[in-house]
Amino acid sequence: MTVDLHFATVAELGARYRTGDVSPVEVVDALLNRIDQRDETKAFIALTAERARAEAQAAETLLRAGADLGPLHGIPIALKDLFHTAGIRTTSGAKAWDQFVPDTSATAAKRLSRAGAVLIGKTNMVELAFGPYGLNPHFGTPRNPWGEDRVPGGSSSGSGVAVAAGLVPVALGTDTGGSIRIPASSCGVVGLKPTLERVSRAGATPLSWTLDSIGPLARSVEDAALVFEAIAGPDPADPVTLKQPAVDVMRGLKRGVTGLRIGFVRDPFCDGADAEVIAAVESAAGVLRDLGGDVIDLPFLEARAALDEEREGRGSSMIMSVEGYACHRALIARHGEMMDPRIRARLELGASFSAPDYAMALQRREQLRISARETLRDVDAAICPTMPTVAPRIADVDVAPVRLTTRLVNFLGLCAISVPCGWSDENLPIGLQIIGKPYDEARILRVAHAYQQAVGMPRYPK
Amino acid sequence: MTVDLHFATVAELGARYRTGDVSPVEVVDALLNRIDQRDETKAFIALTAERARAEAQAAETLLRAGADLGPLHGIPIALKDLFHTAGIRTTSGAKAWDQFVPDTSATAAKRLSRAGAVLIGKTNMVELAFGPYGLNPHFGTPRNPWGEDRVPGGSSSGSGVAVAAGLVPVALGTDTGGSIRIPASSCGVVGLKPTLERVSRAGATPLSWTLDSIGPLARSVEDAALVFEAIAGPDPADPVTLKQPAVDVMRGLKRGVTGLRIGFVRDPFCDGADAEVIAAVESAAGVLRDLGGDVIDLPFLEARAALDEEREGRGSSMIMSVEGYACHRALIARHGEMMDPRIRARLELGASFSAPDYAMALQRREQLRISARETLRDVDAAICPTMPTVAPRIADVDVAPVRLTTRLVNFLGLCAISVPCGWSDENLPIGLQIIGKPYDEARILRVAHAYQQAVGMPRYPK
Repeated sequence: MTVDLHFATVAELGARYRTGDVSPVEVVDALLNRIDQRDETKAFIALTAERARAEAQAAETLLRAGADLGPLHGIPIALKDLFHTAGIRTTSGAKAWDQFVPDTSATAAKRLSRAGAVLIGKTNMVELAFGPYGLNPHFGTPRNPWGEDRVPGGSSSGSGVAVAAGLVPVALGTDTGGSIRIPASSCGVVGLKPTLERVSRAGATPLSWTLDSIGPLARSVEDAALVFEAIAGPDPADPVTLKQPAVDVMRGLKRGVTGLRIGFVRDPFCDGADAEVIAAVESAAGVLRDLGGDVIDLPFLEARAALDEEREGRGSSMIMSVEGYACHRALIARHGEMMDPRIRARLELGASFSAPDYAMALQRREQLRISARETLRDVDAAICPTMPTVAPRIADVDVAPVRLTTRLVNFLGLCAISVPCGWSDENLPIGLQIIGKPYDEARILRVAHAYQQAVGMPRYPK
Repeated sequence: MTVDLHFATVAELGARYRTGDVSPVEVVDALLNRIDQRDETKAFIALTAERARAEAQAAETLLRAGADLGPLHGIPIALKDLFHTAGIRTTSGAKAWDQFVPDTSATAAKRLSRAGAVLIGKTNMVELAFGPYGLNPHFGTPRNPWGEDRVPGGSSSGSGVAVAAGLVPVALGTDTGGSIRIPASSCGVVGLKPTLERVSRAGATPLSWTLDSIGPLARSVEDAALVFEAIAGPDPADPVTLKQPAVDVMRGLKRGVTGLRIGFVRDPFCDGADAEVIAAVESAAGVLRDLGGDVIDLPFLEARAALDEEREGRGSSMIMSVEGYACHRALIARHGEMMDPRIRARLELGASFSAPDYAMALQRREQLRISARETLRDVDAAICPTMPTVAPRIADVDVAPVRLTTRLVNFLGLCAISVPCGWSDENLPIGLQIIGKPYDEARILRVAHAYQQAVGMPRYPK
């Protein structure tokens, strides 16, 4: 097996399966071998090797028999370890759930299975998905392939590392305040946070049900789109998904950006950002302009207002703590001593807020969401840095927390994708964030694809 | 002026205006005279007599000039005193706001004005709309025309009494847990609580913004429909109204109930209800059956579950207290000593709930709402008693509070109308509640109209 197989995209693997050049079993074996060799990455909490080989074999048999399930047929995937998997331990990154084996699988996991995907393992994550850096004292912190002293980004840290390190072409993550986009940006891969109401959360351990979104991490935008199309759509088990418009992202993916109006949002996303981050995003704006996009400066007052809410303690942090405590109070009561004390403290903070304060925070958020939709009506998409810095040093995060603006997207009820857009002087990846209106994943994927086609695929780490 | 003018409906007045038989000025004068003679009803906190006469004069001039604004042209109306009226004192039933004069009018008030309606006064109400019986220590308790020892029902008590006593043909109320339907049932008139998202709350003093609904009290179902059609519709100032389907209730109003499937819901609405209340509703069911309706027994488990939430302290009472406290904490802080101590206590209770408890109550409510919509999918409408009893004695309400099931409709996100359906042995009115799916006001109005046509208009009090 060579590098080209470890770093092949879903689209490339699919084409090769269908010519017979390579089989799902060979790919699964190649990836499992590489995962074994790269054990120090700590990307996985558990592998499902035997089952994956059997599924790959079945996928191959079906394909040879002419029963083609589509673009994910025989494609190895990984799931963040908070997606329930029937008969397979699901820890949600928590020591207390070390032995939890669900009876049924999450809707998103089932949809990937039905689309022919082959689960190779469950990825490492921040305990209960409540943290942006990707640290995990129970299962180890996944190693950022671009710098082992750097955080991998969280909370979907294992998914980001697995995709970046060539251990799996795509992995699912969840994003409550940036937990898909932060590891994507930190590890130099693509991460899509869809509109919350797009992908069923049924069977995914919740953190904050008014913010939790599910989406893919991948190396190519096209792969992210393929996975998104497989997992999105109505599911009665998560009723917020029931009223969504039709999912249709593949058809227009390659149409380019000519004539699209793209708003460059500086405040608050560039506020205090590293110069090399700003330069990389400016450069990306230039690429989009060269491709025919109409890039304009977009004032986005609601993003600033959302950040002000955050600073006043009425923003995403408060809502996450309140809803997180509501979700996990029983766990805290029973096994609080087994939890990462920082995460426990962040959850327990939620109990300190009064109901009227939370009610007003929700009301204010709703007003800002409505207003944000008005602002975005003027553009097809908005661009900004995903993070104001490259991945910080692990040693630094407790000393000087990074200001994270990804959460403004969740707070405002939007969708967004992070795409690699350059490198820092220290050879660390920088992410471009493309933000879309609710349900407008097709448009941000189209912009992201055009950009990635122009600048090329992510680098491979050594 | 004779009884027929005081008790004429909007439809009758409109017809007579157009034949020239009577003018808006005559009607306004007749009503103002009667209000003056019936001062003991305490139905109004303020009259707008001079302005009403001028508006009636203008309406008449316009009508004679052929500028016909439609069915509400020249029709006298009254507004619960929590609808802001530019330049007219708006107390919301609170002593502390005795001198509050808004700069702008509520959207609902403006829409009635633009439809040609003539405001004759602001009706009495429970302070801040937070109470079901209609008592007000500041402005006096409006007198139930069917028994002065009986509560008028609240919180839109003045609106109910004014319509029942022939002081105005229609009045607006608000309904957070029954505040339109309870006075309608108690005073023997019609009260429509539309789906929350139908009528803009902009400029109406809020109590609980996830439950507050605005609608008419009237003597005929047709009048309620006319007023509803005038006030409903999208308003950017209350964004929840923006996504509603088209308002279209008049067109099908008189189509009858032949072939409609009507579910009789006994549990929990008949649970512990007075025998004469149940008998009256059974009789109404018989009338609907005779009219061609397919009346079936409908188990409505979500209504029972909503009542259980209420009993566990996670229902409407909790949500109203939490959101009410969030709305009125500044008033309490500044003028708490001027408030009815019972209402103040009910609001302050909201501060005692934790944010996670309220968050979970909202989540549970959302699940029940979704499930309730499934249950109601099987029927065109559901019927039950509006209240389990007739209007209780004022002297009794602090001793033995009446169990109020009207609030289950708000909790479940539905619409409902109360129509008089009979009389108790003590000559007190009984209300039939017709419940509809979200946005299905057209259907419940149609059922209510057919029923009222069959049984006749409400009695006139002496």
